[in-house]
Amino acid sequence: MLIANGDLVTLPFLTPLNTTQLRSVGIPEPWAFGVADKVRFGELDALGHVNNVAYMSWFEVVRIHYFRNYGLSDYKSADRPRLVLANANVTYKAEMHLGQDYIATARTAQFGNTSFTMEYAVYGDTLHATGSAVIVQLNQDGTKRALSEALKEKMARLDSATPR
Amino acid sequence: MLIANGDLVTLPFLTPLNTTQLRSVGIPEPWAFGVADKVRFGELDALGHVNNVAYMSWFEVVRIHYFRNYGLSDYKSADRPRLVLANANVTYKAEMHLGQDYIATARTAQFGNTSFTMEYAVYGDTLHATGSAVIVQLNQDGTKRALSEALKEKMARLDSATPR
Amino acid sequence: MLIANGDLVTLPFLTPLNTTQLRSVGIPEPWAFGVADKVRFGELDALGHVNNVAYMSWFEVVRIHYFRNYGLSDYKSADRPRLVLANANVTYKAEMHLGQDYIATARTAQFGNTSFTMEYAVYGDTLHATGSAVIVQLNQDGTKRALSEALKEKMARLDSATPR
Amino acid sequence: MLIANGDLVTLPFLTPLNTTQLRSVGIPEPWAFGVADKVRFGELDALGHVNNVAYMSWFEVVRIHYFRNYGLSDYKSADRPRLVLANANVTYKAEMHLGQDYIATARTAQFGNTSFTMEYAVYGDTLHATGSAVIVQLNQDGTKRALSEALKEKMARLDSATPR
Repeated sequence: MLIANGDLVTLPFLTPLNTTQLRSVGIPEPWAFGVADKVRFGELDALGHVNNVAYMSWFEVVRIHYFRNYGLSDYKSADRPRLVLANANVTYKAEMHLGQDYIATARTAQFGNTSFTMEYAVYGDTLHATGSAVIVQLNQDGTKRALSEALKEKMARLDSATPR
Repeated sequence: MLIANGDLVTLPFLTPLNTTQLRSVGIPEPWAFGVADKVRFGELDALGHVNNVAYMSWFEVVRIHYFRNYGLSDYKSADRPRLVLANANVTYKAEMHLGQDYIATARTAQFGNTSFTMEYAVYGDTLHATGSAVIVQLNQDGTKRALSEALKEKMARLDSATPR
Repeated sequence: MLIANGDLVTLPFLTPLNTTQLRSVGIPEPWAFGVADKVRFGELDALGHVNNVAYMSWFEVVRIHYFRNYGLSDYKSADRPRLVLANANVTYKAEMHLGQDYIATARTAQFGNTSFTMEYAVYGDTLHATGSAVIVQLNQDGTKRALSEALKEKMARLDSATPR
Repeated sequence: MLIANGDLVTLPFLTPLNTTQLRSVGIPEPWAFGVADKVRFGELDALGHVNNVAYMSWFEVVRIHYFRNYGLSDYKSADRPRLVLANANVTYKAEMHLGQDYIATARTAQFGNTSFTMEYAVYGDTLHATGSAVIVQLNQDGTKRALSEALKEKMARLDSATPR
């Protein structure tokens, strides 16, 4: 899918991609956020395919980009929230190989008062995997912290997220 | 939970544990298979807790032990099946820290003709995480391979697995 | 160092960089090959810095790119050589943090009949680490395979490599 | 080497082994500290052997055990030192495979005022790898901290370490 009109598509790597860039390589709505990367040798298993655990790492990479870009956490300030996974899920659809280019996408599908559900996907030659995670926002002392109205509005507007 | 009667329990590490050993440290039915291990420094994240991805690795470790012990694959013979994950899931319940002892458990909960659903758990001070995976048995050429009657009988007898 | 003339330098990520690109961000001679990447959350240790092991992974990433680009192995054909590490070394110079951009460089410093010595570096805000590896070229049956004259000429011309 | 007198040796896994235990499986002087473990599926590379980077992880595992056992750091108290690697080295001697038992050993070979040089080895069927690391002891503020006389005496007595 990273080929368009017979040419290898040139995309910025490791910098979040916007909706226009995602659509240009055939990644459909409602995906609005993604990061391009390339399969590493150390991510292969003994059978020569990407190992099952690596997909979880990629979802983590795109999730951290998302948290920074959507303003959830700067991973620096003392008062930043703790964003804790309650659940994570991966569905494997097609094997991947060494050096393959891919885009890992992320969006918020649903939000509640203090938690939200994200969805992920890995697009390369085809849709290789999908995933999801339930994330709870805590204060540094472990108590729950409400999602701001501005954040929920942003999730709704950019990601087509809906209230839970 | 790895303390019994006030004493640190001595268990073989990295060798599969049987039902008697699991019950002796309070791991309940129907778990019948587990492997003890210890949190590594490299499994911690920047917050000092075990990172989310490590649990998936532990489920993989106990799964491979299970495949060998239950006779699904020896990871050697040319005619061995390919055991492919279709889905994996982790639910996070309590954080873990450096050097903590834990037991990762595995069982088959349900089986079909060519696939089966496994469940996993991580027990340390408490129940730290649970998980599941849907696994498909393929031949080396990628076609589906039926689970043997002997295997299904074993899964039912040892793990209380039920037909799907 | 990835800032030039006050502007963030735009470089292709994950595609090997050439000498002109390396010089434009201040990476000195004799480096002629590098790959840009970004620190991942999962590469941090419990102290919040990049863990010691990650640098070895990055040297592996750039080494595999180098092997493909210099024609040592396509990682596909049946007759491809096995390129085996005899020794690896890392010297740590300056800590790195989450999300930091860096370029991992690679070159061959010396070559013999069947083995060669590579050098590596990690450039970000400064020179963060250097490394080296001794690599032996084997046939698939484990016997040694001579480096071709064309390869040695290329290593000498591009990397200023010298005979051992 | 983990077979003695034709029987598989029973050793505690993941708990540091003492000199008597090490000698019982043929690990020679001056090694006085080791940890037994087992190769994980996720540590294999696409060729089915343990990948080069995994050995560095194992040296880290045994190093952290060593730091705790020799009293260098408890990884908890506010005044604990920061133990920072200046250099790390691995020499690869024999390939390893899935599920293989091994013992990773560690010792201090030389000590100075604020730094020391450790050596490592991996013993399984044979001596699979050796390694070394130069480690600097810092205060939490980044200034150098002298090694205590008690620590240097212990390193000399247990590990046959010598002053630099």
